[in-house]
Amino acid sequence: MTATPKISPARAEAFLADFTTLGTFGATGRGGVDRQAGSDADIAQRRWFAGLLEQHGLRVEYDRIGNQFGLLELVPGAPYVFVGSHLDSQPTAGKFDGAYGVLAAAHAAFELAERWGSGSASEDEKPRYNIVVVNWFNEEGSRFVPSMMGSSVFTGVLGLDEALATTDPWGISVGDVLGKAGFLGGGDGPTPVSCAEIHIEQGRILENAGNTIGLVTATWAASKYVVTVEGAQAHSGATVMEDRQDALYGAALLVVFARQLADRFPGVLHTAIGKLDVYPNSPVVVASQVTLLLDLRCSDEGVLAEANRYLEEQFAAIEQTAGVRVSRRLSHEWGINPYQPAGVDLARSVVGELGYSNQEIFTVAGHDSVNMKEKVPTVMLFVPSVEGISHNEAEDTKDDDLVAGLDMLTGVVARLAHGALVD
Amino acid sequence: MTATPKISPARAEAFLADFTTLGTFGATGRGGVDRQAGSDADIAQRRWFAGLLEQHGLRVEYDRIGNQFGLLELVPGAPYVFVGSHLDSQPTAGKFDGAYGVLAAAHAAFELAERWGSGSASEDEKPRYNIVVVNWFNEEGSRFVPSMMGSSVFTGVLGLDEALATTDPWGISVGDVLGKAGFLGGGDGPTPVSCAEIHIEQGRILENAGNTIGLVTATWAASKYVVTVEGAQAHSGATVMEDRQDALYGAALLVVFARQLADRFPGVLHTAIGKLDVYPNSPVVVASQVTLLLDLRCSDEGVLAEANRYLEEQFAAIEQTAGVRVSRRLSHEWGINPYQPAGVDLARSVVGELGYSNQEIFTVAGHDSVNMKEKVPTVMLFVPSVEGISHNEAEDTKDDDLVAGLDMLTGVVARLAHGALVD
Repeated sequence: MTATPKISPARAEAFLADFTTLGTFGATGRGGVDRQAGSDADIAQRRWFAGLLEQHGLRVEYDRIGNQFGLLELVPGAPYVFVGSHLDSQPTAGKFDGAYGVLAAAHAAFELAERWGSGSASEDEKPRYNIVVVNWFNEEGSRFVPSMMGSSVFTGVLGLDEALATTDPWGISVGDVLGKAGFLGGGDGPTPVSCAEIHIEQGRILENAGNTIGLVTATWAASKYVVTVEGAQAHSGATVMEDRQDALYGAALLVVFARQLADRFPGVLHTAIGKLDVYPNSPVVVASQVTLLLDLRCSDEGVLAEANRYLEEQFAAIEQTAGVRVSRRLSHEWGINPYQPAGVDLARSVVGELGYSNQEIFTVAGHDSVNMKEKVPTVMLFVPSVEGISHNEAEDTKDDDLVAGLDMLTGVVARLAHGALVD
Repeated sequence: MTATPKISPARAEAFLADFTTLGTFGATGRGGVDRQAGSDADIAQRRWFAGLLEQHGLRVEYDRIGNQFGLLELVPGAPYVFVGSHLDSQPTAGKFDGAYGVLAAAHAAFELAERWGSGSASEDEKPRYNIVVVNWFNEEGSRFVPSMMGSSVFTGVLGLDEALATTDPWGISVGDVLGKAGFLGGGDGPTPVSCAEIHIEQGRILENAGNTIGLVTATWAASKYVVTVEGAQAHSGATVMEDRQDALYGAALLVVFARQLADRFPGVLHTAIGKLDVYPNSPVVVASQVTLLLDLRCSDEGVLAEANRYLEEQFAAIEQTAGVRVSRRLSHEWGINPYQPAGVDLARSVVGELGYSNQEIFTVAGHDSVNMKEKVPTVMLFVPSVEGISHNEAEDTKDDDLVAGLDMLTGVVARLAHGALVD
């Protein structure tokens, strides 16, 4: 096989033009987007994306959880190299997160379809597997919890019925939304043989090092809790302080402790509480219940275990201090989770041929490829995020880096379609 | 004028029976009620209450903010003694808060209508003023902020247009709700000459002292703030800790500080944060904004000023610690706010004649009568709350105390209708 060719300038230009168009769906007017899973903006961008795939000769299909597939059949009957990410976003999010990976996947497939369909490809340049561009449903999980829903159902770690029955805060279910929009297919989707995903880093490691491509080796370990703090409703003016069992006070002690816990293990432990709901949340009522989601993410499994022990002690201390009851349920837990080393080697080989500065990188954030790598050999790539800003309308990646990433992804998918990591 | 007569046993029985019926509207099944202002349960209880007033010969009217009036016209053309409270509740509230005062007002009016309508009243027993039973709209302010809405518009401290345009979290306005239910009248309501309100204490002072009736002398001073903590949205996993500007962390530091502040002035200062909203409130996003309502209530104006100074310092410290911006708006502020001493004397005279154990009491909680006393001489009375529990389904007051309060209120309203505090 010849060395990896670069994509054409015309391809880079077409990609950037389409990415500009994609950024108009759910645009907030401040550089960001709001296109939560199943929202009008998400439905609109999915329709536009289906049209784009079809224009380039791909066949569009949906599985039973609304994952959107653009099939490029090169070898009738062969399984598929999966390449993609997610188009859905957080509320008031950046336009790169997920969307970049989906559109880069599409243009990688368009590029390879042209390259291999020109009739000039020699026998050893012909692919052995098909390619499918995938837009996983609901990676973000802001409207419908949990996150990574589409890829989790696809890979069997979340039940289809449970996912379809999940409701948003207004009682609308995933099944309703997908059915009405016409995104519910009858089957389980194409058969995967390998997978690639490219994503913005959402951190500043690449930028700080001045590198263009990140070769993702593993994800941090994580413990995710649903915590409920229970107190007692009381008049927030009249009730004497010592009689209060204030659930919000208990929750606030936990939010502060979680931050202090991260500060004990600088750079190794990340803690976060992003979602917190107060009941009855009324101006003159002491809260009887607070529910919050607490995440610990850690690059060292020993530190994570130690942090969990500190947390355990703190739950008991908070119960004493605030006169509340604290219960928690471990909703997700995983250890340090490596991508296949052969996939990292493959990416290293391609990036060497293309000549981009690069480094191995540990990802803190979860991605759909974390699900896929449990099923098939999977390559995960990053491009830099300006100042590491993400889940924010100011999220940015430079055009040159976007194009370099597309070039890199195209090279990796070409190798995978030729049978790398499989044969 | 003769000494205050007691209400009849039949009156007490009828009152308790009606109170049981009233407690079925919006009943939660755990002893409490949920009948937030303008809810289906609130609309239903208002219709039932209108029927009850009409059965007893009172004329039912509404003003332009949906305050419900039951007019007992005894002296054509004369102004009105106002007696009432509010039927609306917090979510998952007790059934006594407000509702007791409205139903006691109605039965006080029924009792006096009978007493004075019997034809046996001597000339010096005949009233000089009319009586109106009032159910103030939206005292609680949980669904529609601010609280004490109906009495605030009635007394001119809140604009009518602003009140009608207030929306709930689903975008439904006060004007919509009241208009649809048929509770919007065309006028400003009857003209007041004096006012009485009875309410459960919502504290445990009367119970601890073994007294039946509280003669309210003043309300605590208060400072109420709307606080906004602004940070920056970020990925809650990937973003390194030192880059985070976590609005929820800043808010949690404030919740903890508010509690510590109250602990510095035991028994004198109450602090509370009952409502706190996180944006975007998503599992994997560092919050960019938290809005919360912070109340300070204090029995000593000097201490309140000192507490406000500590708070000021703390806002600056939180901005430093959490890397956020904290802004606050003083939404309400009042000093130690006395009821007319002549009204307290009147109540003391009546309670002496009726023979109930009693004491003067300072109220922490706000009531509609706080608005009314700025307009006309006003008497505020309390009955005991079992264990001081309030804004909670377990809220309770013993039947004997409910009846004693009705007896007391009837006596006070009789004196007011005869011209006490006015002539």
